Amino acid sequence: MSLIVQKFGGTSVGTTERIQNVAKKVKKFRDEGHDIVVVVSAMSGETNRLIGLANSITEEPDGRELDVLVSTGEQVTIALLCMALQKIGCEARSYTGGQVRILTDSAFTKARILDIDGQRMRDDLAKGRVVVVAGFQGEDEAGNITTLGRGGSDTTGVALAAALKADECQIYTDVDGVYTTDPRVVDDARRLDKITFEEMLEMASLGSKVLQIRSVEFAGKYNVPLRVLSSFEDGPGTLITTEDIENMEQPIVSGIAFNRDEAKLTVAGVPDVPGIASKILTPVSDANIEVDMIVQNVGVDNRTDFTFTVHRNEFKKAQAILAGVASEIGAREVIGDSKICKVSIVGVGMRSHAGVASRMFKALSADGINIQMISTSEIKISVVIDEKYLELAVRSLHTAFELSEKPA
Amino acid sequence: MSLIVQKFGGTSVGTTERIQNVAKKVKKFRDEGHDIVVVVSAMSGETNRLIGLANSITEEPDGRELDVLVSTGEQVTIALLCMALQKIGCEARSYTGGQVRILTDSAFTKARILDIDGQRMRDDLAKGRVVVVAGFQGEDEAGNITTLGRGGSDTTGVALAAALKADECQIYTDVDGVYTTDPRVVDDARRLDKITFEEMLEMASLGSKVLQIRSVEFAGKYNVPLRVLSSFEDGPGTLITTEDIENMEQPIVSGIAFNRDEAKLTVAGVPDVPGIASKILTPVSDANIEVDMIVQNVGVDNRTDFTFTVHRNEFKKAQAILAGVASEIGAREVIGDSKICKVSIVGVGMRSHAGVASRMFKALSADGINIQMISTSEIKISVVIDEKYLELAVRSLHTAFELSEKPA
Repeated sequence: MSLIVQKFGGTSVGTTERIQNVAKKVKKFRDEGHDIVVVVSAMSGETNRLIGLANSITEEPDGRELDVLVSTGEQVTIALLCMALQKIGCEARSYTGGQVRILTDSAFTKARILDIDGQRMRDDLAKGRVVVVAGFQGEDEAGNITTLGRGGSDTTGVALAAALKADECQIYTDVDGVYTTDPRVVDDARRLDKITFEEMLEMASLGSKVLQIRSVEFAGKYNVPLRVLSSFEDGPGTLITTEDIENMEQPIVSGIAFNRDEAKLTVAGVPDVPGIASKILTPVSDANIEVDMIVQNVGVDNRTDFTFTVHRNEFKKAQAILAGVASEIGAREVIGDSKICKVSIVGVGMRSHAGVASRMFKALSADGINIQMISTSEIKISVVIDEKYLELAVRSLHTAFELSEKPA
Repeated sequence: MSLIVQKFGGTSVGTTERIQNVAKKVKKFRDEGHDIVVVVSAMSGETNRLIGLANSITEEPDGRELDVLVSTGEQVTIALLCMALQKIGCEARSYTGGQVRILTDSAFTKARILDIDGQRMRDDLAKGRVVVVAGFQGEDEAGNITTLGRGGSDTTGVALAAALKADECQIYTDVDGVYTTDPRVVDDARRLDKITFEEMLEMASLGSKVLQIRSVEFAGKYNVPLRVLSSFEDGPGTLITTEDIENMEQPIVSGIAFNRDEAKLTVAGVPDVPGIASKILTPVSDANIEVDMIVQNVGVDNRTDFTFTVHRNEFKKAQAILAGVASEIGAREVIGDSKICKVSIVGVGMRSHAGVASRMFKALSADGINIQMISTSEIKISVVIDEKYLELAVRSLHTAFELSEKPA
């Protein structure tokens, strides 16, 4: 018998019929003898409906009141799910974030969890009840209702699992797990049985469709085994957990991630003096433009080229800022390209294996794909290429690293 | 400067546009220098929508979970009203029943208020804020969400006014006050400036359209001046308060109340022995049939007739029960009539004025209306008559007691 936290998102509880399906799924685990804590989101569409009401009154609603409003969405779901559980003979009890009590800071609409009191939940579990908790919300020290921001229900699930020292936190979604790459790009993309927290974070571009990055960080930090499963089909899903040191046979590369809609900006002929990177990037970040890859090569003749990527939507804005910066710092020119994409190979295995990068570059070159930028981390190698090669690059790398075959 | 509690029902906050109108009304009072606590219901239709969701899962939802569900209705309104107030420059802060804290017993879906902590509200008022509280809900000792049952927002308003020792509790509705009788029956029915709690309770048949009886009892008990006003028009409304002893010139009769849809049942030839009334009524009340008037005249030859009225919907059910009872107690027969109505004159003034009853009976007789039953209380005389005379009787009494003229 183990303690499992199960999180169901808005689509999984989108109608009362689906809520009844969730109840059946929960009861199946309960009948197997597990203790179950369920975290639910608002029924799909409900949060937007509530925000629409607020916006019909004011375009800038007060954060405190917005949280009072929006938190009702999950409150509706917890009550309905308890009714559905009770109807099929499964004792259950609902709790709002405040009732649990999930203590947060007072940053309305984007609060952070400070502490969770597990006592009420443990008492209910000991009485054989399923505990149903509203995701996405908490209460600050003064008793004000807070919300964790969009997608925060995953974080609630992981935080409860950590507080209760649960054996597993199951995140139910509309996909049946994490894949080696996007199955829409590579036909024989394979569902991974297991992936490490670090890999999951590096695979953000794939993973963000499945899990909130913040909840993965949280799970990694508190070492809560996280499992991604489908709400609609049965199956083992993908377990996200710490690196399995005993299993040396893990694959070198776990998956291929990619980002479309990137744009690249180069400030060319920059004087190669200390502090220059900060002079270039500070005005960009002051304008709230998120910068992804940053590459600077060694300088020649006291001049260097400084390149970074941004989301394509921010391209023109960033270009305008850089025009000013370039003349200020005495750079030669600003060159931009908004027709690029990023492709990355991710895997903890590459730490101990040489030659991963060369295998990657060889595969791309064999298909005539020119690499414009390269950036590496411990467990990831990213390249920027012309956007027209995206699918070709992903497929070619998927084959090169034999990702469609299950490792021994 | 006074402290005013204002309660707005579901129709008054039925759309975000109406919520903005409520905000303007509240701000007007605030700008006059009053401290304001606002109590709101769920937007009209919302409570039924939520109950519909529950019923699509189960016909008998658990009371605790139903309260978690339904209480979201008012929570949505408090947030939206605060946003609307803030938008027009009126500082405001919302509270759920649990946050206030309105402590109730644990009778889910029909809880009773035990205590109210006024401290948070007083702190906010002292800071110049309008306090907006969710009606109809509270929290029990264990922190479970409770609701006071349908229409309970009026009770919340009165209870808050009592706890805060407010100068007045204003109940905003879709009528502009309490009338001498139903204006749909009597064209020149007059809005009363003032009425006593006792009169308001006796006028239940008129008053229940305006105010929840329970909140009037509550206001009377704690001596909270209650004012009924229109949400949609300006005007002084009707003040419901304790008897004004200094004003001896108050009218003898304040209003004419009536009930349609009554039915009358007589158990005739009942043995005139102790305990017989209880033998007749116990099986009726055991069947959850509400009994209104009860009349028993002095017996002749150790036999008497026992008559009472019920709602017309319950007539056949009650008749069937009495058939059994009659033979059991040796009564002669059961006579029923489902085509009757009840008309009452109500007024604290009749306590000190003789001849009110005879004036009433004379007026009815002048119009050829036969009186079938009579029942009296300290401040009310009710008669049962043939239903076809209802409008005629009400008009005739309204004229006889000169109710369309404002008393000096």
